[in-house]
Amino acid sequence: MDHAERIYSEYNAWLQPKFSLEPKALQISASSDVDFIHQECRLGLIRLWGGIQESAEYTLRLKVDDLEHEGFSLTPLENGYEIAGGSKKGLLYGVYRFLSRLAGGESMEKIQEHSAPQVDYRIINHWDNMDGRIERGYAGHSFFFRNNKFDYDEERITNYARLMASIGINGICINNVNVNRVSAGLIAEPLLSDLAELAARFRPFGIRLLVSVHFDAPMIIGGLTTSDPLDEGVMEFWKAQSAVVYDKIPDLLGYLVKADSEFRGGPEEFGRTQADGANTIAAAVAPFGGVVFWRCFVYNCQQDWRDTQTDRPMAAYKHFQPLDGKFDRNVILQIKNGPLDFQTREPVSPLFSSLKNTNEAIEFQIAQEYTGQQIDLYSLAVQWEEILTTEVDKGKQLKSLLGREILAMTAVANTGDNMNWTGNTLAQCNLYAFGRMAWNPELTAKELIREWVRVTFDTDEHGRRTVEEMLLKSRGIYESYTAPLGIGFMVNPSTHYGPNIDGYEFSNWGTYHRASLEAIGIDRTSKGTGFTLQYPEPLQRMYDRIESCPEELLLFFHRVRYDYKMKDGRTLLQYIYDSHFEGARQAEDLLQSWEGLENRIPQETYHSVKERLKLQLLNAREWRDQVNTFFYRKTGIDDEKGRKIYR
Amino acid sequence: MDHAERIYSEYNAWLQPKFSLEPKALQISASSDVDFIHQECRLGLIRLWGGIQESAEYTLRLKVDDLEHEGFSLTPLENGYEIAGGSKKGLLYGVYRFLSRLAGGESMEKIQEHSAPQVDYRIINHWDNMDGRIERGYAGHSFFFRNNKFDYDEERITNYARLMASIGINGICINNVNVNRVSAGLIAEPLLSDLAELAARFRPFGIRLLVSVHFDAPMIIGGLTTSDPLDEGVMEFWKAQSAVVYDKIPDLLGYLVKADSEFRGGPEEFGRTQADGANTIAAAVAPFGGVVFWRCFVYNCQQDWRDTQTDRPMAAYKHFQPLDGKFDRNVILQIKNGPLDFQTREPVSPLFSSLKNTNEAIEFQIAQEYTGQQIDLYSLAVQWEEILTTEVDKGKQLKSLLGREILAMTAVANTGDNMNWTGNTLAQCNLYAFGRMAWNPELTAKELIREWVRVTFDTDEHGRRTVEEMLLKSRGIYESYTAPLGIGFMVNPSTHYGPNIDGYEFSNWGTYHRASLEAIGIDRTSKGTGFTLQYPEPLQRMYDRIESCPEELLLFFHRVRYDYKMKDGRTLLQYIYDSHFEGARQAEDLLQSWEGLENRIPQETYHSVKERLKLQLLNAREWRDQVNTFFYRKTGIDDEKGRKIYR
Repeated sequence: MDHAERIYSEYNAWLQPKFSLEPKALQISASSDVDFIHQECRLGLIRLWGGIQESAEYTLRLKVDDLEHEGFSLTPLENGYEIAGGSKKGLLYGVYRFLSRLAGGESMEKIQEHSAPQVDYRIINHWDNMDGRIERGYAGHSFFFRNNKFDYDEERITNYARLMASIGINGICINNVNVNRVSAGLIAEPLLSDLAELAARFRPFGIRLLVSVHFDAPMIIGGLTTSDPLDEGVMEFWKAQSAVVYDKIPDLLGYLVKADSEFRGGPEEFGRTQADGANTIAAAVAPFGGVVFWRCFVYNCQQDWRDTQTDRPMAAYKHFQPLDGKFDRNVILQIKNGPLDFQTREPVSPLFSSLKNTNEAIEFQIAQEYTGQQIDLYSLAVQWEEILTTEVDKGKQLKSLLGREILAMTAVANTGDNMNWTGNTLAQCNLYAFGRMAWNPELTAKELIREWVRVTFDTDEHGRRTVEEMLLKSRGIYESYTAPLGIGFMVNPSTHYGPNIDGYEFSNWGTYHRASLEAIGIDRTSKGTGFTLQYPEPLQRMYDRIESCPEELLLFFHRVRYDYKMKDGRTLLQYIYDSHFEGARQAEDLLQSWEGLENRIPQETYHSVKERLKLQLLNAREWRDQVNTFFYRKTGIDDEKGRKIYR
Repeated sequence: MDHAERIYSEYNAWLQPKFSLEPKALQISASSDVDFIHQECRLGLIRLWGGIQESAEYTLRLKVDDLEHEGFSLTPLENGYEIAGGSKKGLLYGVYRFLSRLAGGESMEKIQEHSAPQVDYRIINHWDNMDGRIERGYAGHSFFFRNNKFDYDEERITNYARLMASIGINGICINNVNVNRVSAGLIAEPLLSDLAELAARFRPFGIRLLVSVHFDAPMIIGGLTTSDPLDEGVMEFWKAQSAVVYDKIPDLLGYLVKADSEFRGGPEEFGRTQADGANTIAAAVAPFGGVVFWRCFVYNCQQDWRDTQTDRPMAAYKHFQPLDGKFDRNVILQIKNGPLDFQTREPVSPLFSSLKNTNEAIEFQIAQEYTGQQIDLYSLAVQWEEILTTEVDKGKQLKSLLGREILAMTAVANTGDNMNWTGNTLAQCNLYAFGRMAWNPELTAKELIREWVRVTFDTDEHGRRTVEEMLLKSRGIYESYTAPLGIGFMVNPSTHYGPNIDGYEFSNWGTYHRASLEAIGIDRTSKGTGFTLQYPEPLQRMYDRIESCPEELLLFFHRVRYDYKMKDGRTLLQYIYDSHFEGARQAEDLLQSWEGLENRIPQETYHSVKERLKLQLLNAREWRDQVNTFFYRKTGIDDEKGRKIYR
């Protein structure tokens, strides 16, 4: 075991010691009102270098200056260095960024940066239940809750807050959007005091808590007989209860609400609009500067598979677009990146281009529910970059809306109480990338992956390159052996891992591929369900016409015959076969590449990732064979290249 | 509410009061050593008539006589009546039979019968776990166990024992064949004393308990490091432990063992044969007259769907047939009726015709795991009659082996702690029929259903006829809308209720239909997997040739093209469509027939059965549409009659 091995710990994630770096003798200078930041800076340098050699010759100055509120500047001076922030928060971000660039191996004299975040709200959503289980969690149990109580390791919370602040996260919602009768009580005593105590632990790191509230709280904790948002008593309940909440936690960011969705109550049950529901709650937190994040994941989850008129991806637009302009200023509509549900490949939700007078948040999912569950390697940064650079309106990319209409980037956490936070250690990269990308959406996946690899592993150029390449390719590989071309789903119901081609085909969830012996997919064009009409021109026309539809989304928008000729001349069927054979082969490559890293990556990480890559290979082969067999059994047409398809 | 309504209770099952009967004034005469039977007779008459009018004019004499051990005779005398039994047990059975015929409305003077059971062991197997849950239970929780302890209502146990004795059951295994670490302890203290106490409650009714034991008991409760049946220590463990058991329960019937099956340990893990395993345990109980029921449900439940060589129905024969003659005399091989797993339609297990020097039990399943789960109406009597009258060897029907090679009829219980015992009240008929048929396999389903209806309901001729017809047709209806022609499965994995055509198609369980665009089924003929070769001639040839294979088993034995012409000229595909359209329509008829019985059937039963018939109709339509759509999507061929098939 070499030196690096002894100091590396998966628990440190991207805040690893780097004793291999050349320390610099220096003194830190800061005014006493930024003591906490001063200390974070000092602790950070000690972590990196193993200690600080004090020297009056070189001063690292920390100061609050006239910059953007959360912004910072990093400036080398003669015989010194200055980290300035537009506020204490900005200064803290500056310190973390400075430490990160040092950790990446840059020399202090060359680190120069001026930066401010593009969106105000950079938020992590935990889907933690208070019984300790995490919905769609793949890294153990909650580190906030157990047995319907707060139950946490204080040191872990501090470390978590530091990790999050170091990548610019400034808001965290600790409880599942699927609020139950227990977690509904978080906005009332006795749980409220515990929540306030936890909020205090995050506060020094510039992180404000959010709480998922139950739309039916007026009944559940208020003892009322209705939750009708236009009922006087209900409005009064929200006001009074919010006053209690803000009295305990004056800087609470606000509430997150999942209403009228998947068996949750909501305003539509009372004949009210989504705006009625959101505004009533928003009015209650407005006096305290609070915000309501109102999720747009509203659709009919009791669809009959025989019903071909209802088209689930159209639902959010139908519910929310007509209400554009009707939401209060402190309401932020939280919209999943795609119109369906965190699939490997979806178009961007048409709500982003169609809401003009509404505050929006884009919601990503770092938890790999449909993308390999932290067993299969999957770099979400690659996908997010594609999404953010998608054209959503006359020449405008989605990312151009960030900081304008889109005020927030939120994401479902991929963390749990596993020692390495994320189950698969390489999945730490997704968490890292989310925070950094929310800060600066111009960063590419390649840059983000490169940053993360450099700060995490003390390995050589070959080691870094290999991990970078594995991550960069991972999303494409996973997509190719699962359900490519935007067809989505085809996963095992409930677990959402592994293939089950017809698994959702006759269910209530509105996710159908309707594969016949001749064709597959739903016609979502203007001649079909009309989903494409939810996009502005020229996107509408682009998606509508099979010739101009981006090929990777072919089966999201079109019903296509298996003998359809793809752009390169292959039939759709042959494309499906090729994609699955090739994807499974590349999963082998991933394992092989990783095996080349033995002794270049700390043992613990090497072995645990290797185990997962082996499971991924099994999964990839299962996908390959089930998908190919499924289509062979529909068509009777063999692979052109004669590869094995089971009968 | 009329008189009958007031005295009927679902809890009484087939032991209902029948105050409408003409009571007969009589006195009962019996020697003092049959006091319990005397009392059962007296209680039975009081139940039936509402009371007994004593009269010295007419004597009902109970006596033990020189008859078959468990046999009885019922004989009208001048001014009296005699019930004689070949033993106390026989006498008890005579009393119950006498009461049952009275309850059916026959006049005492005309009740004449001489009867003895055809098999020695008539056994109910409960799949009750000690935590209180019942595996594949559809009528509530266990009425023996709760929270890993014995926990029962004494009165309910007595009533259950009486119900079972009244239909001739003489053995009951109270714990699940899937023995876990808790229930493994039933053969040791402290649980053993509780078991003994329960055994005492069944004893007066002529019922001996059986206990499911864990093959690894030598390790789990004996503290040994092996369960190898040829290990001296293991043999010693079984002997010593069995001595302890029989000291507490001298009349324990014996042990039931599921070994080498679905993740249970077994002799094959130690390189031993099934006979080695069974004989070691049997030797331990032999000195006490105990018996070992050794299940033959041994197969590879970790099959790869890509593997077309392994054919699950062949497994039991392969494991056990070569061992014919190797099992000790007190071993009884417990063989499921079919080679697969309690499907709606299977051939008879080839083990019955091929084991010549081995004691056998035939195992049925009264619990409706694959046959509607006590929601959908399903008369098992109809299926059992078909099975028992199936030719298994040169002109011999299966039932001719009963009492010869087949010494026992056993069945998985359909009971639970629901007030009506069986969830669906009409499912009581299956429990009733099993006991009666185990006693007398010559009874037809029609006779058994008629008996049950008469003793259970105090209704008019129209009422009786309607229920009888519903039950008689029910098996055919269920089969037609689910997975007919012996194809089996196509159910939702895990739950085994409702359609999921490809649900088991890519699983490990060895149950595949391999439907392509042209054909469906596994070729199990001599040209295929060779399963048919496990049958003797002429059955082998009959099943082997598609022309002579019974049509209802077509897809069990053959892989058949959709354009294959059935006997009546329809294509297989059209048969599938017709079967499902017709089955769903008949499910409507069932509901309609039942609705005609309002006020003819007690309200409680009327409504609860009606609710189930409505659910059955939904289920039938779901099956119809999913199956038809599945095959339409494979073939592109529409229904000839133009009925609606969803695309």
